[in-house]
Amino acid sequence: MTKVAIVGANGYSGEELCTLLARHPRVQIAAVTSRQHCGKSICEILPRLTGLPSVASLVFSESRVQNLVECGADFIFLALPHGLAGEYAAPLVEAGKRVIDLSADFRLRDADTYKEFYGEDHGAGHLLKEAVYGLPELYRTEIARARLVASAGCYPTSLLLPLIPLLRAGLLEPQSIIASCVSGVSGAGRKAETVLLYAECNESLRAYGLPKHRHLSEVEQELSLAAGTKVVMTFVPHLAPMNRGIHSTIFATPAAGITRSQVEACWQEAYGKEPFVRLCSALPDVKNVASTNFCDMAVREDERTGRLVILTAEDNLGKGAAGQAVQNFNIMAGFSETDGLL
Amino acid sequence: MTKVAIVGANGYSGEELCTLLARHPRVQIAAVTSRQHCGKSICEILPRLTGLPSVASLVFSESRVQNLVECGADFIFLALPHGLAGEYAAPLVEAGKRVIDLSADFRLRDADTYKEFYGEDHGAGHLLKEAVYGLPELYRTEIARARLVASAGCYPTSLLLPLIPLLRAGLLEPQSIIASCVSGVSGAGRKAETVLLYAECNESLRAYGLPKHRHLSEVEQELSLAAGTKVVMTFVPHLAPMNRGIHSTIFATPAAGITRSQVEACWQEAYGKEPFVRLCSALPDVKNVASTNFCDMAVREDERTGRLVILTAEDNLGKGAAGQAVQNFNIMAGFSETDGLL
Amino acid sequence: MTKVAIVGANGYSGEELCTLLARHPRVQIAAVTSRQHCGKSICEILPRLTGLPSVASLVFSESRVQNLVECGADFIFLALPHGLAGEYAAPLVEAGKRVIDLSADFRLRDADTYKEFYGEDHGAGHLLKEAVYGLPELYRTEIARARLVASAGCYPTSLLLPLIPLLRAGLLEPQSIIASCVSGVSGAGRKAETVLLYAECNESLRAYGLPKHRHLSEVEQELSLAAGTKVVMTFVPHLAPMNRGIHSTIFATPAAGITRSQVEACWQEAYGKEPFVRLCSALPDVKNVASTNFCDMAVREDERTGRLVILTAEDNLGKGAAGQAVQNFNIMAGFSETDGLL
Amino acid sequence: MTKVAIVGANGYSGEELCTLLARHPRVQIAAVTSRQHCGKSICEILPRLTGLPSVASLVFSESRVQNLVECGADFIFLALPHGLAGEYAAPLVEAGKRVIDLSADFRLRDADTYKEFYGEDHGAGHLLKEAVYGLPELYRTEIARARLVASAGCYPTSLLLPLIPLLRAGLLEPQSIIASCVSGVSGAGRKAETVLLYAECNESLRAYGLPKHRHLSEVEQELSLAAGTKVVMTFVPHLAPMNRGIHSTIFATPAAGITRSQVEACWQEAYGKEPFVRLCSALPDVKNVASTNFCDMAVREDERTGRLVILTAEDNLGKGAAGQAVQNFNIMAGFSETDGLL
Repeated sequence: MTKVAIVGANGYSGEELCTLLARHPRVQIAAVTSRQHCGKSICEILPRLTGLPSVASLVFSESRVQNLVECGADFIFLALPHGLAGEYAAPLVEAGKRVIDLSADFRLRDADTYKEFYGEDHGAGHLLKEAVYGLPELYRTEIARARLVASAGCYPTSLLLPLIPLLRAGLLEPQSIIASCVSGVSGAGRKAETVLLYAECNESLRAYGLPKHRHLSEVEQELSLAAGTKVVMTFVPHLAPMNRGIHSTIFATPAAGITRSQVEACWQEAYGKEPFVRLCSALPDVKNVASTNFCDMAVREDERTGRLVILTAEDNLGKGAAGQAVQNFNIMAGFSETDGLL
Repeated sequence: MTKVAIVGANGYSGEELCTLLARHPRVQIAAVTSRQHCGKSICEILPRLTGLPSVASLVFSESRVQNLVECGADFIFLALPHGLAGEYAAPLVEAGKRVIDLSADFRLRDADTYKEFYGEDHGAGHLLKEAVYGLPELYRTEIARARLVASAGCYPTSLLLPLIPLLRAGLLEPQSIIASCVSGVSGAGRKAETVLLYAECNESLRAYGLPKHRHLSEVEQELSLAAGTKVVMTFVPHLAPMNRGIHSTIFATPAAGITRSQVEACWQEAYGKEPFVRLCSALPDVKNVASTNFCDMAVREDERTGRLVILTAEDNLGKGAAGQAVQNFNIMAGFSETDGLL
Repeated sequence: MTKVAIVGANGYSGEELCTLLARHPRVQIAAVTSRQHCGKSICEILPRLTGLPSVASLVFSESRVQNLVECGADFIFLALPHGLAGEYAAPLVEAGKRVIDLSADFRLRDADTYKEFYGEDHGAGHLLKEAVYGLPELYRTEIARARLVASAGCYPTSLLLPLIPLLRAGLLEPQSIIASCVSGVSGAGRKAETVLLYAECNESLRAYGLPKHRHLSEVEQELSLAAGTKVVMTFVPHLAPMNRGIHSTIFATPAAGITRSQVEACWQEAYGKEPFVRLCSALPDVKNVASTNFCDMAVREDERTGRLVILTAEDNLGKGAAGQAVQNFNIMAGFSETDGLL
Repeated sequence: MTKVAIVGANGYSGEELCTLLARHPRVQIAAVTSRQHCGKSICEILPRLTGLPSVASLVFSESRVQNLVECGADFIFLALPHGLAGEYAAPLVEAGKRVIDLSADFRLRDADTYKEFYGEDHGAGHLLKEAVYGLPELYRTEIARARLVASAGCYPTSLLLPLIPLLRAGLLEPQSIIASCVSGVSGAGRKAETVLLYAECNESLRAYGLPKHRHLSEVEQELSLAAGTKVVMTFVPHLAPMNRGIHSTIFATPAAGITRSQVEACWQEAYGKEPFVRLCSALPDVKNVASTNFCDMAVREDERTGRLVILTAEDNLGKGAAGQAVQNFNIMAGFSETDGLL
């Protein structure tokens, strides 16, 4: 059994990580940390986990680097709010641990872009170059040997998976991309804010983060690499009354003469053997991917306007966060990529 | 008191019409009809209405033209599924009634377009030319004297209100328009279909009706008139887990040099005195318009791509159906446009 | 037009009060107060109200007694969290204002019971005797001339309305009453607490406040008065994933020989002419009372066990809070009791 | 790998069975049947299952006994609507198959009670005596060797698990039991009925099936066996706007002198080693048991009235249906009881 630790285990992504790793056939959870609940049993704070033999005796410890170095874990999952991963990643990597970070802190290759989108200097800029962008379908080889994997974000995964192979193959006009995405409320985290109250989100639908959502930076970074030219795109996220799930509707102009069937053929070649990408003939629905690590995708042709419409669905806590992190971990640890995820 | 009748009063739009008209200070409901519930008390079938003095004694009668001609109503609201309004509208108009149709049956000016989008010949094509498109903010004068008003649809209203003044003023590239819309489930009607069950729609989000939803025909008809050139656009509707509300996110390329402030100025001029259009500085949210006749709208500039993002929210049963129908009725009857609606 | 003020207008009950009073045909809102949003436009904080002519120019003022005395209002609605009404009610009543308090602060006649259930001394105990319990169906005459009305609470109203006439008539065993109630989440207030987040309440159902919820004190006070003997009962409230509504299921043993039809006859006599109590043959459903001031009630006989099952539904923000407060106000002001409420 | 077949695999319980059995480490699904979708791929109808290797090639076959006999399965799960299991169970058992029936058809030991509650004669009455009531915590030994197991129902499980040990130990007054239960909408099945539409169930809460719900018959049968005397109880089920989950609140009078701690000790003795019963200090919440096979339970003492309040939560499709069926199957097959369920 490989020992792992989870830092920030009481957020939604952290809890989902605990759920997945508690059932993982090759994992032992050596430590879980939480600033807020330090000293309490994990089952008191996350009662849903009670009864899973592998977590029964876990107690939240302090989120200190020293604890993590000494807990015996070889892999450390960081499930922290933005901006906090830096202070853990650097010393942990130096101490020989392999780190999977679920935050956005190490997803950008360029510290200037980080500053542009996040409004502050990066605290551990030297690690930006080393960190591998944790989207297994694109960077499997690099992930396998990485010390620090920056697990790809929820919105970005739902956009990059369908678009990257198409841009690489030159099937789309790179500057024509527009994405209208809808997320369930858990995507905002377990934060006690009035705007996230049940009665504020139920029977509500609203856009937010316009026009320059932070996740745009990592999407454009990867799209540009795929297209071989700098790509800028329009991205509008929305919040819908559901717990989990992201649905993305992407509009793009195909390169001259390109049709739906060529898009589907390109995806088939890229993802035909991928265990977690499902190429759908029907339109994706978040209910089919909730609590899974799948990303569903489909494409339609709008013949009247000549545009393509690409639709994807995933679980923001699954393939968009904890599931993806476990997939990255499986690759790093040399396990079957689907262990604990199917 | 002006007497009205409601045909198909037991659907969601019909029920909302009953709710609004039961409280309208100048209206008496003379008849409600339902094929399914003929002979039953309205309060048995729609218990929510019980206790409103004006509906206490209403019983669903048969949906026959002769009944409607003889019930004493001067105005007849048709709240029927697609394709059924034709057989009522023609004889009722001939009998001197004024008709407000909530269906799509009389919204197109051209029988060929009707056949293209609805797949069949129009049964009362001679009335297509006479019918007035029931969007008060655009056709107030024509509505005032019309015999037959085709009340504008839910998605179309959420798209036409923001776009028409901008196209008229030449502020947008007419062929650049893309709309990603989300509707609550009541928009699909009170139909016993598996896909509309609670457990199929809750924790679900999905697109449908791609790529050529029927409502596209009336939207493009009106956009083309406003732009002075044939407009085709991309339109993707989605279903979200909420009872009511439509949120539309519209992407468009501005004409050269046009900015957010010019869009806002154009709207201010067009709608500054409109009672049911709210120009918002914050982003619209369907919870703010649910159970109202308001349409909220805002615009943002995506400086990086040069696109405009326009966002609107309305209640699909309010400004998108029954509220709009009552607004049309108020205009036809010479009442204050806000009677029974604020 | 009668001038009113609303203290604490930015909570859920306060917002609902604003919505109702903005449409009330005989009311002018002279002032709204909020500690948190002092100086801001009401439409900025509560955007749903935008476009209602009567609130367009309102700005939240400080919640100071002096402001309220001088604002010109004759009636003051207090929509504050528990424990704060005392410091307003006393000086306002002394200054000649008539006060409708939506909190629980003045609902108990006995300061000792207050201390038992609320855990602290009452700050304005001298007013407990004067305050009238604001349940119009029971205390209409006293409310009409009261200076201070303690508007009845949400759970209590759903229990007292069905039970009081039955206990007065001796139709129930007084000590046999058990109530299992379910509330929508707005009942917990607009408080930024983790347990009230969307993702904590959606797909969740749980009991809380066991075994001695504070509202029990006012229920037992009024039941005891009706029965002529001290009544104690079991009360279990639950939270369900909906915005609004309370559903109460009450179990009781009938007095010897009493059947369903006698219960219904008793209710008919008590409530046959009441505008806001609906005696239903079908089982109540909160969706039929949401956003109304109605309380629906029905009874069933469990012949096998000899018990009666009484079921009620109301809107916790309507008949359970703001609607009831307006009904009390209408009585105090000598208006028609249904003004602004149907 | 043990071969199984699932009859009626396209209902909610059937789909959940497929989900669980597709991941079960010792199972191969040999056949799935559906009258409605015969000939179609399981992944077309239940797209959520796509990508699970073990179901990839499954096609719905006809629901004929002969097919099932010949498909090679040793265990047959029947997930059919009420009244249909009889025609399958008898010939399948005769053909040597072992049958787990998820319907209510074989849960009663007495054909007269069946007729009283279900209104018709039982079609396979001779099997009633042989069938074992499929509640593993109570009948583990009998289940192990049974040919036909009638898996216990959703509401019954949530009531029997807490009550049976208490009645066996004489801790409760047997005739004092009252249960107020709330179920998610999937409990009503995947039936195209208007009352189950999203917009009818969302923002709705209502009781149904009063006063003599069919499930009462099996509950009272088992309670009576436990108490050693005929028990009748009051049972009120409600429908709440959530997909999954049952919450039961049970009121009972303790035997003289019995307190909360004795109830908890009794449960500890009965369930301390049970893998799927969680004895909680906090109040149960359906969100903690959704998509699991756990039943959570807690008890509180209402000292003022002398009553006990018992609260349980389970997933109606998990421990209330498919999870329980798999647990029964594990016992019958001699597997670890938690295989495929933790």
